[in-house]
Amino acid sequence: MKKPQSQGNSAAGRKLADLDAVFSALAHPSRRHILLVLHYRGGSMTAGEIADRFACSWPTTTRHLRSLEAAGLVRVEKKGRERIYRVDRARLREVVGDWLKPFHDGD
Amino acid sequence: MKKPQSQGNSAAGRKLADLDAVFSALAHPSRRHILLVLHYRGGSMTAGEIADRFACSWPTTTRHLRSLEAAGLVRVEKKGRERIYRVDRARLREVVGDWLKPFHDGD
Repeated sequence: MKKPQSQGNSAAGRKLADLDAVFSALAHPSRRHILLVLHYRGGSMTAGEIADRFACSWPTTTRHLRSLEAAGLVRVEKKGRERIYRVDRARLREVVGDWLKPFHDGD
Repeated sequence: MKKPQSQGNSAAGRKLADLDAVFSALAHPSRRHILLVLHYRGGSMTAGEIADRFACSWPTTTRHLRSLEAAGLVRVEKKGRERIYRVDRARLREVVGDWLKPFHDGD
């Protein structure tokens, strides 16, 4: 099945690209888990705190973080030698919430 | 990275399994599209109407429908010789909305 519409530079195309990136990022349980942990830890954690929290290889974690970053769900900031990862709750609510909105009509 | 928790028969395990099935189903743009079309057509369509609406091979469409069915987002009913596909909006709102809820606290 072809994608419903082309994803050009139009506003609609950008919106579809956002939906694709966000829902692809959310498809993996580890990535949903990282977002929740960031949220419950106050919204942000350093790379070191994330590495300590997730008892698995850093390359795997960092791959998930990159996917979340590409979807705009996590933003990275450098502070001296630290990398700080922050969850973008507003974008999460906006992209997922907007897509879900039509389904609030009907049983 | 390992899955955050085992998915046993506990309520928490079932909830995680539901999240996995639903977010995996929503990861493909064609499946999100099918759900929206079902919704805007009043909530249900026959197999024939779906085949007419989506100008692509029926095996591809039916594969997407099976994935949506496995996630509980679409229910199939037989009426005589017809197969009727119905979107389960309540489940969609419940599973996705519940997961999104914590993120409503914070910017």
